[in-house]
Amino acid sequence: MKKLTLILILFLLLPAFGWTQKIDFDKKLKDLGIELYAPTPAMGSYVKVVRSGNLLFFAGHGPTRADNTHIQGKVGKDLTLEQGREAAKQTGIALLSTLKAEVGDLNKVKRIVKVMGMVNCTDTFTDQPKVINGFSDLMVSVFGEKGKHARSAVGMYMLPSNIAVEIEMIVEVED
Amino acid sequence: MKKLTLILILFLLLPAFGWTQKIDFDKKLKDLGIELYAPTPAMGSYVKVVRSGNLLFFAGHGPTRADNTHIQGKVGKDLTLEQGREAAKQTGIALLSTLKAEVGDLNKVKRIVKVMGMVNCTDTFTDQPKVINGFSDLMVSVFGEKGKHARSAVGMYMLPSNIAVEIEMIVEVED
Amino acid sequence: MKKLTLILILFLLLPAFGWTQKIDFDKKLKDLGIELYAPTPAMGSYVKVVRSGNLLFFAGHGPTRADNTHIQGKVGKDLTLEQGREAAKQTGIALLSTLKAEVGDLNKVKRIVKVMGMVNCTDTFTDQPKVINGFSDLMVSVFGEKGKHARSAVGMYMLPSNIAVEIEMIVEVED
Repeated sequence: MKKLTLILILFLLLPAFGWTQKIDFDKKLKDLGIELYAPTPAMGSYVKVVRSGNLLFFAGHGPTRADNTHIQGKVGKDLTLEQGREAAKQTGIALLSTLKAEVGDLNKVKRIVKVMGMVNCTDTFTDQPKVINGFSDLMVSVFGEKGKHARSAVGMYMLPSNIAVEIEMIVEVED
Repeated sequence: MKKLTLILILFLLLPAFGWTQKIDFDKKLKDLGIELYAPTPAMGSYVKVVRSGNLLFFAGHGPTRADNTHIQGKVGKDLTLEQGREAAKQTGIALLSTLKAEVGDLNKVKRIVKVMGMVNCTDTFTDQPKVINGFSDLMVSVFGEKGKHARSAVGMYMLPSNIAVEIEMIVEVED
Repeated sequence: MKKLTLILILFLLLPAFGWTQKIDFDKKLKDLGIELYAPTPAMGSYVKVVRSGNLLFFAGHGPTRADNTHIQGKVGKDLTLEQGREAAKQTGIALLSTLKAEVGDLNKVKRIVKVMGMVNCTDTFTDQPKVINGFSDLMVSVFGEKGKHARSAVGMYMLPSNIAVEIEMIVEVED
């Protein structure tokens, strides 16, 4: 009995020694019904992510599917709020795909730091935060506390190829 | 007389040894007529500030008052330039409130580094810089040289809840 | 013959020892037909660049000429795609001018890290990436691999003084 208690205490203390359990992200993503894909080509003369120190700076990504088609249209006119939220989630999948291709193992992610969420919408649509929640909720589902980020959500006049959402982010990774 | 000169020289040299006078920010803010408040809830699934290394990345903040109401409307139609400038100043107070809650002592601020100022305006309004000056002038009043930042000021089609201004910033703090 | 091979091998190994050839940027810019100028004044209460650690955070710059006039108008109405691209290139020259004034020697640039390209356009114009390529292609012409950056390109409702393009960037520099 004493031995068992000791083992339990040691187990609970492990995180204090810098030990953290590796997450099986392949399984986690599958459980969430998320399928990552090989990053699609950039839309212009740029790269999709650049590392500087421990920070990854991501290019603006759109709601791009594995076949390089996009969810298009203005939220509040062509798309409903719910469809906008789906577009933001798809943009999250696009960003996760680029992230995974960059770091290999998603366990290297220390924090989703900063997000800029841009919604292609009408000038009477004021629920940009609810749209971008489609992205933010995904990040928290995947990374838990590490997925919680600072964020701006704004309404854009027009986005490239009339995509519904464009999101860029800054991610801190391990050395 | 010699002794006095020596003391004066030593006093002038103090900053060279890393000594800097602590500012009484409570007094300074009071003198400026600025009242900080407990940060209001985020508008969506995000947090208001994330630290990475020595940098604080702030979520986009709006011209939110202590009672969680906002200055709303489009500058150039619903609001005058001067009212827009006031909204930018109020947004600065919201950001300072989050900053104070995060760092405790504003003396820890080394530099307001980068600011993105977004103005909800008409498509004939071209004085976004004058609007965002309401924020920037506040930062310089509070922090002096450390308050001077790189900045973008742009005109947005629509912002969440029709707020007049949304501003995000990056702040460098001490270790 | 053996001696020559040895010299050749040593030469090819030099980069592995941290040795890199200094580029004559004055010549390179001249060859590209690019003329930098003394930075023009900021459009408001801000500074044009702030350094934090190894990162330079640039204020939003416009397509400003050496005489402080700007390329103005909306792409898709007042300006063609090609004129928009020229405006993005001119904005690149403005940013390079600020960068050069800040670091002195452009050899200190390690990487153009992140770019936000904002195009003043109509709500039917969807070629923002092609416009901002005018900036991005310039950076790659000047810095080669180091000029490749992560980027967002978006369509704005209005920009200060009706400038055609506004671009901000983050640049990593040597210690």
